[in-house]
Amino acid sequence: MASTQTPKSIMHSVAPMLSVRNGAAAVEFYKAAFDAKEVFRIESPDGAVVSRLSIHASEFWVADESPEYQNFSPESLGGATTRMVLTMTDPDAVFARAVSVGARSVSPVSDKEYGWRVGRVADPFGHHWEIGRPLE
Amino acid sequence: MASTQTPKSIMHSVAPMLSVRNGAAAVEFYKAAFDAKEVFRIESPDGAVVSRLSIHASEFWVADESPEYQNFSPESLGGATTRMVLTMTDPDAVFARAVSVGARSVSPVSDKEYGWRVGRVADPFGHHWEIGRPLE
Repeated sequence: MASTQTPKSIMHSVAPMLSVRNGAAAVEFYKAAFDAKEVFRIESPDGAVVSRLSIHASEFWVADESPEYQNFSPESLGGATTRMVLTMTDPDAVFARAVSVGARSVSPVSDKEYGWRVGRVADPFGHHWEIGRPLE
Repeated sequence: MASTQTPKSIMHSVAPMLSVRNGAAAVEFYKAAFDAKEVFRIESPDGAVVSRLSIHASEFWVADESPEYQNFSPESLGGATTRMVLTMTDPDAVFARAVSVGARSVSPVSDKEYGWRVGRVADPFGHHWEIGRPLE
């Protein structure tokens, strides 16, 4: 499925590309944890993937790291320089589902003084996700 | 402008939050380089910012790093774990503008065998941007 077609919806857009070790496994994790849908995928003969995923109308990319091109996984650098803000109507349920399939709880879902109900997980590949919604 | 109102458009969404040193300066850079619009901002008394920016219909966040909460800037880790994919109808112009206001060219805009015309810059805060569009 190495199509190069690009829907018009992504023209004039910005989307993050997460570098990971084991991109193929990461794609499966994001599907299981966040109900992400894969909309595009390139696989190299060595198994490395570049995958575009969507969660509702939002898109992000996942790719195997390539330190020679300055694309580093959190495992390589010992931390992440971008976290993902996942806004969902039921953050408690999404948080629980993510943890049930392998994410690690960094801070449980709770009401914050800045007006959000939010929790934070680290995924098995070292990227962090803030899962929340604005309080009523 | 510490509003906590959230437009319905970001419910069920995922957006990256870039950790940087000097968030206030980074916001100004993203406005100048990519014509980003600031749609929400919180400032702490110490000058740290959390800012939500939009480029056309896409949103991303910028925040001062907080290593004590596992939010690291590329300067702190010596690289970035997420790169930003900026899809624009005229990548050459956007690339040139970014460089003119302080981005560093990592690879110039060129046609790639995978069907995109794309170049890559590093911004002054260490985040990398792939600026491109699909070839006809």
